[in-house]
Amino acid sequence: MRPSPVGHFRLKANDGAARRGELTTARGTIQTPVFMPVGTQGCVKSLSPQDLEELGAEIILGNTYHLFLRPGDELIAGQGGLHRFSGWQRPILTDSGGYQVFSLAALRRVTGSGVEFRSHLNGSRHFFSPEKVVAIQKNLGSDIMMVLDECVPPGAGYEYTEKSTTLTTAWARACREAYPRGSGDQLLFGIVQGGFFPELRSRSAAEICELPFDGFAVGGLSVGEPKQEMQRILTHTAPLLPADKPRYLMGVGSPLDILDGIALGIDMFDCVLPTRNARNGTLFTSRGRMNIKKAQYADDPSPLDPDCSCYACRNFSRAYLRHLYVAREILSYRLNTIHNLTYYMKLITGARQAIEEGRFSAYRASLAAEQE
Amino acid sequence: MRPSPVGHFRLKANDGAARRGELTTARGTIQTPVFMPVGTQGCVKSLSPQDLEELGAEIILGNTYHLFLRPGDELIAGQGGLHRFSGWQRPILTDSGGYQVFSLAALRRVTGSGVEFRSHLNGSRHFFSPEKVVAIQKNLGSDIMMVLDECVPPGAGYEYTEKSTTLTTAWARACREAYPRGSGDQLLFGIVQGGFFPELRSRSAAEICELPFDGFAVGGLSVGEPKQEMQRILTHTAPLLPADKPRYLMGVGSPLDILDGIALGIDMFDCVLPTRNARNGTLFTSRGRMNIKKAQYADDPSPLDPDCSCYACRNFSRAYLRHLYVAREILSYRLNTIHNLTYYMKLITGARQAIEEGRFSAYRASLAAEQE
Repeated sequence: MRPSPVGHFRLKANDGAARRGELTTARGTIQTPVFMPVGTQGCVKSLSPQDLEELGAEIILGNTYHLFLRPGDELIAGQGGLHRFSGWQRPILTDSGGYQVFSLAALRRVTGSGVEFRSHLNGSRHFFSPEKVVAIQKNLGSDIMMVLDECVPPGAGYEYTEKSTTLTTAWARACREAYPRGSGDQLLFGIVQGGFFPELRSRSAAEICELPFDGFAVGGLSVGEPKQEMQRILTHTAPLLPADKPRYLMGVGSPLDILDGIALGIDMFDCVLPTRNARNGTLFTSRGRMNIKKAQYADDPSPLDPDCSCYACRNFSRAYLRHLYVAREILSYRLNTIHNLTYYMKLITGARQAIEEGRFSAYRASLAAEQE
Repeated sequence: MRPSPVGHFRLKANDGAARRGELTTARGTIQTPVFMPVGTQGCVKSLSPQDLEELGAEIILGNTYHLFLRPGDELIAGQGGLHRFSGWQRPILTDSGGYQVFSLAALRRVTGSGVEFRSHLNGSRHFFSPEKVVAIQKNLGSDIMMVLDECVPPGAGYEYTEKSTTLTTAWARACREAYPRGSGDQLLFGIVQGGFFPELRSRSAAEICELPFDGFAVGGLSVGEPKQEMQRILTHTAPLLPADKPRYLMGVGSPLDILDGIALGIDMFDCVLPTRNARNGTLFTSRGRMNIKKAQYADDPSPLDPDCSCYACRNFSRAYLRHLYVAREILSYRLNTIHNLTYYMKLITGARQAIEEGRFSAYRASLAAEQE
């Protein structure tokens, strides 16, 4: 069989709206649905590339904003790109930096041509335009690039959101023009915005989806709104995205959020939750969340999760993991992260299999019960 | 061939005073000279047991003082001992806690029967007697236990040191009586003190070495004195230790200090230097020490040390390792630690081979040149 061309998305099965597919990138084909661990600064916090490979990560996310500021995209280009620099050889998706500019940077000022901001690290002044974020991502050499968008602040009114949605469309068009389809091996995804107004979501989807992107993301969700709000907007928006392209729900989410997204036809997810929670001692298990700090685990000889086969669960007790956490040992962060990401990988491979076998609803229901 | 009994020390070769041997413990035979990475809180900082095995560590050290305070030796005993608790199955040596009481704890008060102190963690009050530190180490289940000693503060006068040396002998005797030879599979080592007075070192060695210990340590060195001072005392003391037992120089040291110790007939070493330096970005290489923070490495694509085959040197550039360090990524500590301990392991296996081949002086001289 001939290898699929870069950018090819093949749907292999579906179960209701839930989809099972595969996306071909320059660095191999990834199975969907997929969860992408977040490697903000060119490293999934506390893990080595070997750790990530062993726990089955297929693609990771890198943050353009952070890498642009430190060590710099040109430095990374000079080192042969982000893959070679970081030692991770499987696919990488980079965001556009837009979200971080709006959530982390200081003194930002949006104009028609881009956004000016100051670095959260040292206050230095920078300007991100659509063309600039494409150029940065070309320097990073990611397999999937994202367009620049404005992430509307939670609680923004209709008028602000409408103006912002129009701007996001203009920026998306400018990104695609800066990197025309077929001009390289990197894929480029568009992002649908529109805040919490279904009408604006519809307009954004219509405008973004007519552009020739390799995939389409839903942005501006999971920004602090109630879960029902996210569900309402996603239920409205997901069916508006082209069926023959991968659909990516940015920054989501909890295990249940992910299965809810899959149920609505989403294929790709990323979130800091499993890695950040791990560093705070909050662990996902087949018995629900547990906080390893708790005194009740001090002399508990059982593994974190008897149903998990990760390095942490195979080799250490809750008692030891609690000790490492309480003693602030660096190893604690790594073992907890390996465990939480293994949980997410198992969640997602379980979802794939359930879709293939036409029992996704039951799979989702059993997770909901487990997480009670 | 029959396995050697626990405690058996066999000299396999010597080159001048430098010795090549092996010591049989309950969890296997270790080759000497040996360097023991320090695993203060039941974990060599930032590393997993798998990391330690892969870099070739044969025995690690645990700190009785720290483990007694947190999570507690009784808790560890209830979890099946320190090996099972920590997942490290090769030999462990535990110190007696004496050194930490004198360097870390607050409000210590020495009496004939032991030392009272307050925890550096929470101020709680405790008492270490010779019997108590043996009982703690029995709970930990280490393969080699150390006797309680008073580590004389640097700059102590003759009178204080003489009194302290007498006390250390009394405590050593009490430790041996609390755990008579042959009463278990754990070995017990005596410690020679005597400060910086050769006469007191001689007296301490005579008193300690007539007791039936499984090995003998030189304590109270590398406590802040000039290197020549340490050399002077070690040159005097090492030959006073029994030739047929392992000799352990506690808390030493730099790569050159270790080879200097081996040259004087020392078999065992431990030191936080390679692990602590790693976390500060100071790395040992075949080209001397380097500080990975330096701007000159920002775009340096070469490995840390082209002569090293550790995971960090095989997979990452100086540029990436500097980025991880500057960005305070947790992975930085681990990769640096793997590298520094690999350097120490190679140093020590090189020393073994040099002794076997009768060229230890040349080996030591070449290291001195490399570290210029």
